[in-house]
Amino acid sequence: MDKNKYRLLNQIKYPSDLRKLTIEQLPQVCQELREDIIEEVSANPGHFASSLGVVEITVALHYVFNTPEDRIVWDVGHQAYGHKILTGRREKFKTNRQLHGICPFPTPFESEYDTFTCGHASNSISAALGMAVAAKQTGKSNRHVVAVIGDGSMSGGLAFEGLNNASSTPNDMLIILNDNDMSIDRAVGGMEKYLLNLDTNETYNRLRFKASQWLHAKGYLNEDRRKGIIRLNNALKSALAHQQNIFEGMNIRYFGPFDGHNIEEVVRVLQQIKDMKGPKLLHLHTVKGKGYKPAEKSATIWHAPGKFDPKTGKRILEDDSNTPPKYQIVFGETLLELAQKNAKIVGVTPAMPTGCSMNIMQKEMPDRVFDVGIAEGHAVTFSGGMAKDGLQPFCNIYSAFSQRAYDNVIHDLAILKLPVVLCLDRAGLVGQDGPTHHGIFDIAALRSVPNITIASPMDEHELRRLMYTAQLPNQGTFVIRYPRGNSEHLDWKCPLEEIKIGTGRIIHDGNDVAVITLGPIGNDVEKVIQEIESDEETKNISVAHYDIRFVKPLDNNLLTEIGKKFKRIITIEDGVRDGGMGSAILEWMDDHHFTPEIIRMGLPTDHFVEHGTIDELRKLVGLDNTSIKQAIIQ
Amino acid sequence: MDKNKYRLLNQIKYPSDLRKLTIEQLPQVCQELREDIIEEVSANPGHFASSLGVVEITVALHYVFNTPEDRIVWDVGHQAYGHKILTGRREKFKTNRQLHGICPFPTPFESEYDTFTCGHASNSISAALGMAVAAKQTGKSNRHVVAVIGDGSMSGGLAFEGLNNASSTPNDMLIILNDNDMSIDRAVGGMEKYLLNLDTNETYNRLRFKASQWLHAKGYLNEDRRKGIIRLNNALKSALAHQQNIFEGMNIRYFGPFDGHNIEEVVRVLQQIKDMKGPKLLHLHTVKGKGYKPAEKSATIWHAPGKFDPKTGKRILEDDSNTPPKYQIVFGETLLELAQKNAKIVGVTPAMPTGCSMNIMQKEMPDRVFDVGIAEGHAVTFSGGMAKDGLQPFCNIYSAFSQRAYDNVIHDLAILKLPVVLCLDRAGLVGQDGPTHHGIFDIAALRSVPNITIASPMDEHELRRLMYTAQLPNQGTFVIRYPRGNSEHLDWKCPLEEIKIGTGRIIHDGNDVAVITLGPIGNDVEKVIQEIESDEETKNISVAHYDIRFVKPLDNNLLTEIGKKFKRIITIEDGVRDGGMGSAILEWMDDHHFTPEIIRMGLPTDHFVEHGTIDELRKLVGLDNTSIKQAIIQ
Repeated sequence: MDKNKYRLLNQIKYPSDLRKLTIEQLPQVCQELREDIIEEVSANPGHFASSLGVVEITVALHYVFNTPEDRIVWDVGHQAYGHKILTGRREKFKTNRQLHGICPFPTPFESEYDTFTCGHASNSISAALGMAVAAKQTGKSNRHVVAVIGDGSMSGGLAFEGLNNASSTPNDMLIILNDNDMSIDRAVGGMEKYLLNLDTNETYNRLRFKASQWLHAKGYLNEDRRKGIIRLNNALKSALAHQQNIFEGMNIRYFGPFDGHNIEEVVRVLQQIKDMKGPKLLHLHTVKGKGYKPAEKSATIWHAPGKFDPKTGKRILEDDSNTPPKYQIVFGETLLELAQKNAKIVGVTPAMPTGCSMNIMQKEMPDRVFDVGIAEGHAVTFSGGMAKDGLQPFCNIYSAFSQRAYDNVIHDLAILKLPVVLCLDRAGLVGQDGPTHHGIFDIAALRSVPNITIASPMDEHELRRLMYTAQLPNQGTFVIRYPRGNSEHLDWKCPLEEIKIGTGRIIHDGNDVAVITLGPIGNDVEKVIQEIESDEETKNISVAHYDIRFVKPLDNNLLTEIGKKFKRIITIEDGVRDGGMGSAILEWMDDHHFTPEIIRMGLPTDHFVEHGTIDELRKLVGLDNTSIKQAIIQ
Repeated sequence: MDKNKYRLLNQIKYPSDLRKLTIEQLPQVCQELREDIIEEVSANPGHFASSLGVVEITVALHYVFNTPEDRIVWDVGHQAYGHKILTGRREKFKTNRQLHGICPFPTPFESEYDTFTCGHASNSISAALGMAVAAKQTGKSNRHVVAVIGDGSMSGGLAFEGLNNASSTPNDMLIILNDNDMSIDRAVGGMEKYLLNLDTNETYNRLRFKASQWLHAKGYLNEDRRKGIIRLNNALKSALAHQQNIFEGMNIRYFGPFDGHNIEEVVRVLQQIKDMKGPKLLHLHTVKGKGYKPAEKSATIWHAPGKFDPKTGKRILEDDSNTPPKYQIVFGETLLELAQKNAKIVGVTPAMPTGCSMNIMQKEMPDRVFDVGIAEGHAVTFSGGMAKDGLQPFCNIYSAFSQRAYDNVIHDLAILKLPVVLCLDRAGLVGQDGPTHHGIFDIAALRSVPNITIASPMDEHELRRLMYTAQLPNQGTFVIRYPRGNSEHLDWKCPLEEIKIGTGRIIHDGNDVAVITLGPIGNDVEKVIQEIESDEETKNISVAHYDIRFVKPLDNNLLTEIGKKFKRIITIEDGVRDGGMGSAILEWMDDHHFTPEIIRMGLPTDHFVEHGTIDELRKLVGLDNTSIKQAIIQ
């Protein structure tokens, strides 16, 4: 490491070191922290633009607040790289996202500076409010609690519920609104416009802030005087403007907007307001990707850019001309193809048009694609409303995030049998994003809900056929789950053909043992079977392989055939083992008085699966090819 | 029926009949409709105060809008009795809430005037937005779509997500904000205060409304002129006040507040604004229970008062001195008892302090009980924050509503193993509230989630023991599910004793068949076993009965004993059959190479269970004592 290059950063192992510096040294710290993040992430890919955007906020928070005694709750952890580097994890940071290395998101299991789970957006205010209340109740009334939330996360209903409750529950929490006018894709919705409007009143807010600074200097800002201050504040407000903003309307004191990249200003504002009583919100403007020109220009691409040359900004893209397309691309292209033929089709995505490739349809048919912002529950209910009155929505949500919409699927789709195709992208292990992002509970949670069809394609041809089938008339609520990553064939664009609902298929005939799979893990099983057949020691074992395809409804004919023929069945799925597809098969066999030995392979339900590459994780949980082979030949 | 008494109402079978009347006749219609609701609900109990509060809104909507072609979406259907009576269901209304009778909530399966599922709060804006978009996309641009939402429902994050998206998606939806300053208990949170603040600007809003009336009269209110109007509106706004309210900040035009009981005013306002383009919100003040003095005074009691004498307002309460207390009372009393000993305990409820009896603790310890409003997701994450910093929250949510917090349980509790006791009241069939309220998916959805303990008490003594156990140190996330209705013993207040985690118990020894139950349905099984033993024909069948008590973790020792001893096992639970407790037993037996015949009894997963008494519904789904007996003696 170049000692000169990181002159100040090298002195900082923990925030206590940072706090020994003068405020004048902080711009240099920010500069160095930014360079360090660029250097690290260019070589070891991860989330990028978000962390660059909050460098000054991160430094200011740890400078002003007494962390870890004071609590910082990050909303969505991919902005927290700077935080990790400043809190004892700089040396380990090169292991970020790797198996047994630094977690991609803050987690209390890794550091006492990490206060809460932060993989799904919009939970920071609720969690921080809990901590603020706990501080009061446990006699730690000097503890400060700060939630840092982006404007994109603000569109999530949970954030609003937190704000709403923060206004009526006694607490001294500070909410930092990091307003970068972006979520992963551009933020959408009224809240964003609202924030833009607030800026027009900058003069008023600045004046009011100056007044509170003056009051603070005069020693007025202690709790006894609080009521007086509020009156004065209100008077000032009246004198300057009659605007009431949403936060103040909710009795949350509002400060800002300020430039979130002016470290000295941010520090000074934080020092002024940190000890004020009652809930308060500080509105800071930042630029996602700040300090790295290519990222500033195109924050969506630089959200998680992969490897790149830090000097030139050239992304090091792998040659994928000989790689089958990602499942999401096949989804995106096929959706457009279907929408061109079926005028009823509309697309709905909660802030993921790029992430799920619905942007392909959006580009051609902007009026038929609805990016509703980070709002999974609404995405589903809104789709239900459209389906009720004649449209055929395809609503695409990452499996892990769809947990936010569980009630909406039951209550607003299934009860009414509404024709919504719910596509769960990133189903199964997702790899390096870790436990908050693995999409593993969907089958167990959804298969007990009446009036739902649940399917998963073994490859992208099947994905296309399932999508085609799902939008045919009278199919009701139709869930299609498929994984992150690449599909199977270069020639992915097969004809669109109907699949009979509730039918599985035989992939490979055999006599000794039946392997039943769901989804693309079936392709691994095919490789394992080839190995078994080409190995002298095992080639006498005759393995049958069935792609069950539909978890609900199950294929009665196929299962009857399997039940009659086999004494040994192995079920394999990329989802939780208990309650999943294997359990459905087990239930079916028991209900129909078949008594084969059934070995269910899937993901554990006694602990959460960590982060690492998908191959590493499969090995760890016994779902890799070697484990599958062992189970079959045993 | 007294012909004179219902002179106008008797002429109205459908809204088209209503629309033949003059505006001057509407107050009389409202009067008669109100009397009809009082007469009906006093004799055939149901929800009461909410429907009285929206009589004028209901009449006005069907008078002004061309229903069913125009869409009305009710948020939470228990306010929709007037709507049902005016839309072809007056004669059948005496079957309300009864098996095969009128549904307690609107449902499109019953009438084309009912547009969407409405059992869980806060979904109306999202669903209505979907319908408004569908109207545009399918060429029905003359269709009006109206969402009617109470201020209590506005605290739900889903409502905010809907509002946020309504402001950025082209639509002409009208949102009626029925502001009665109540949800079931009193509404809480900043949004409520915000609405109170809005009222102070009544002059401004009235003036603005007069201006728009004038513009309308002059023919200015067509789409071409819309931009001009907005400019004028803004100018008027500037001239009068600088207040920007949350709705207008989100680009949703705001009108109000008006008196929601002044039918002629409401009709006139609706006529004025109905054809305005763009999303708009009409803020109406109403009184829950309006027109029935006892209900106006005490709306929480009169939310669902049971039978009463319509003349005197005397509620006809059954003598319950010889009835064991409701489970919720045992929960409430025990929580207080525990909280008196354990200073870490706090209570969290999403708008149900009375409904779950947390008001017992709230009365004694107001600072340690948090009613967060209708906001289940926040309730859980907020509890997680408190638990992270040293408190021991008991968060009580009705099982069906907890579906809204599924992700929060996984992401904000289980991943961090946080010590929150999640009490799921109303678990299992709830009876007359029907499919939206049955709490039947919780076990299937939660048991695959790591780091959670899931238990259900067979009686209230066990509930007390489980609650005691759950709050002992280091228990992590602990779910206790228990049903609606009365418990088992008059002497409910047993000593508080620890139950070893993951241990079931034998209730009744036997040799031929093992019955494994979870929760209070075990008491029915005991009765069945007594019948079997006292019947000459069956007394030779030796039935063992086990209360499994914990679905997660399962009792390995007990199940080993059962697996070794029995060739036939019957599992019985008040929850979905597929994926539930019985499936967990089946999985366990298969994993441990036991091969008994297993008969799983539970609720169906191929259709939603309708409304009716719990006894009727159990019979319908084959979970009544006769069916259980049949299964055992077979």
